[in-house]
Amino acid sequence: MPKFSQSVSALRSSAIRELMSLASRPDIISFAGGMPGNDLFPVEEVGELFRQLNPEAKQAAFQYGPTPGLPSLLESLSGYLERKRLPVQKNRLMITTGSQQALSILARAFIDPGDRVLTEYPCFIGAIAAFRACGADILSIPVDEEGIDTGMLQEMAARSSPAKFLYLTPCFHNPAGILYTTERKHRLIEVMQGLDIPVIEDDAYGDLWFSEEDRGRLQPLKSIDPEGIDLCYTGSFSKILGPGLRLGWLLAPEAIHEKCELIKQPADACSPSFTQVIADAFIRSGRIDSYIASVRQQYRLRASAMAAGLRKCLPDYVRWNEPKGGFYIWLTLPEGTAAAEILKHAIDGGVVFVTGSTFDPEGRRTNAIRLSYCNNTPEEIERGIPIVASAIRTVCG
Amino acid sequence: MPKFSQSVSALRSSAIRELMSLASRPDIISFAGGMPGNDLFPVEEVGELFRQLNPEAKQAAFQYGPTPGLPSLLESLSGYLERKRLPVQKNRLMITTGSQQALSILARAFIDPGDRVLTEYPCFIGAIAAFRACGADILSIPVDEEGIDTGMLQEMAARSSPAKFLYLTPCFHNPAGILYTTERKHRLIEVMQGLDIPVIEDDAYGDLWFSEEDRGRLQPLKSIDPEGIDLCYTGSFSKILGPGLRLGWLLAPEAIHEKCELIKQPADACSPSFTQVIADAFIRSGRIDSYIASVRQQYRLRASAMAAGLRKCLPDYVRWNEPKGGFYIWLTLPEGTAAAEILKHAIDGGVVFVTGSTFDPEGRRTNAIRLSYCNNTPEEIERGIPIVASAIRTVCG
Repeated sequence: MPKFSQSVSALRSSAIRELMSLASRPDIISFAGGMPGNDLFPVEEVGELFRQLNPEAKQAAFQYGPTPGLPSLLESLSGYLERKRLPVQKNRLMITTGSQQALSILARAFIDPGDRVLTEYPCFIGAIAAFRACGADILSIPVDEEGIDTGMLQEMAARSSPAKFLYLTPCFHNPAGILYTTERKHRLIEVMQGLDIPVIEDDAYGDLWFSEEDRGRLQPLKSIDPEGIDLCYTGSFSKILGPGLRLGWLLAPEAIHEKCELIKQPADACSPSFTQVIADAFIRSGRIDSYIASVRQQYRLRASAMAAGLRKCLPDYVRWNEPKGGFYIWLTLPEGTAAAEILKHAIDGGVVFVTGSTFDPEGRRTNAIRLSYCNNTPEEIERGIPIVASAIRTVCG
Repeated sequence: MPKFSQSVSALRSSAIRELMSLASRPDIISFAGGMPGNDLFPVEEVGELFRQLNPEAKQAAFQYGPTPGLPSLLESLSGYLERKRLPVQKNRLMITTGSQQALSILARAFIDPGDRVLTEYPCFIGAIAAFRACGADILSIPVDEEGIDTGMLQEMAARSSPAKFLYLTPCFHNPAGILYTTERKHRLIEVMQGLDIPVIEDDAYGDLWFSEEDRGRLQPLKSIDPEGIDLCYTGSFSKILGPGLRLGWLLAPEAIHEKCELIKQPADACSPSFTQVIADAFIRSGRIDSYIASVRQQYRLRASAMAAGLRKCLPDYVRWNEPKGGFYIWLTLPEGTAAAEILKHAIDGGVVFVTGSTFDPEGRRTNAIRLSYCNNTPEEIERGIPIVASAIRTVCG
């Protein structure tokens, strides 16, 4: 057996892989993945955009590009982000190989083995994995339906071992499904001010809102641009074009951007020029706006179907929130419930989902379930939800 | 200033970036980059292949794929590698985001800060950067025109602090341009046997041979399949399709593959499905073979033009080898020469290249120059080489 490095010796395969192979079976309804619907991708539009590119742009698609991204995409994406009032000019933008790479690079920039980092509970599994791969000691702070528990955050942040950063998903949280209130965001900023702890804000889902009336709550922390906090903002083309392009971004203060570029260079030299050229054409053609409007509508229909099914079928003791955007609904079961038992019954019935402990950095809390509605038709959702509800009743009574 | 991790605090920007911006100026002839010629990319063929894909394959191009690669590409690439007699079935194959990512992942799999690794001198700059990013202590062993100095390797490998791996590029070395002899490969295998030091074999250029008579020497170490050595073989689509697709591969024993998959998962989830679908179609259509045959011919012409120029213009005290394949010619200047001084004069004359110290893990040896012929027409090469020769004479007499 080869002598692996210490950090890698500790890495173990997760149960997610097995679950995902189950999720791809045609006889199973999968509420497990966070994958956009295959039927929703702008396949024809992108084919057409690629055909129309000039020969130089096509050649550039095959060539290496600068590590921080192709200049043309950095320019068009800057415009896109400035329309969200993000402070692009005061920071620096980098194209990453998915926003997963942005999290991985930030983890390497800040974490030495044993270092403390703060996250929400529940927390995006890709973030947990990226932070663990650097040997982080993760402490998670619960969210309620308005956002992270700022009282507990203040207490945790004041502990003797200072955290290297705080990782948050204020907008259509994966997996909790929540949207932070404006008040909670301002309270959070107050708490973080002067603590000298950078904040990583993950905004992979912010474009997928369902109702005009929530738009006031979509403003990223980064666009509030609070003084005295090093705010690193990550985003992704995965949900607004396609994850198979592997393109995300990081908007960060100059000093952090500089280190992140030094980490990205040996990691993969640059993100794919081929898909950067496509994303650039997608933004510049304006197709991105009409496409997002159309998928927003689709995900709203899917979310409604799931919410209607849950309202109808779930026992009263299950707590959950009607989604305002994004891909997920989070079910909280009575304290002590083993969601893994519910999953077994659901699989027997033909439905798969991910249990809550997967999203718990401490791996202790077992009484939750994440349901994704993103990759199912309303009809599949209507068939699947009663099976989930029945599995819950079988275990919880 | 944010508190960065210890390994990252030490990272510094290299001078290469400045050089590359100079290299992109239209009034400068650049022998600096290792980029394939823009005019050589199979732009039309790939556009046509993409149009002909069935709707399911196009949708898959937009979707996440498994971390080790799309099954269809793993299958077609396995066939491609088996035709080179690589032991694909006894190992496991992974698609990586460029072979640069394969090196980065292997570095993370094996290196803890301060660990010793062995490389050749000179050595690929991307490998040096990937190993340094993990805090490696790199010891480099010189190559001659037949391969690495196996006597010195034996001595180094026997030292008290055992190395975590040995990194090699036996085929059309970057930057040394050499092709290992079969004898040297067998001697190397003898030396490594029983040492319990994994070998990383980088074969990014193996398809770009110039003469049928050298084909016997192209056999990778991995296809010799020596007992008792953990051999990790990396390759790339960058030189046989286009680096902008960001696709490479790693063929490694099961236990190493498993750890590498665990490292890749949080690094970028998967390599771009979009370009994997394209690479798969490129292999299955057979276009890859005709395309490689055509670029081989082009690079041979460029190499010949450069060799002819060097034969005509260089002073006798410069040592170099006629290239048998790949992208590079390595000039060794008299001991003590400062190639950086030669570069200054060359830039004044309108030519840029990379100085040898960039490829020295220890950064001490200053008396070499790497010339790339891959991205220039024979006419540009004929104009540029006299300028290089004149700069050498100005400094060395």
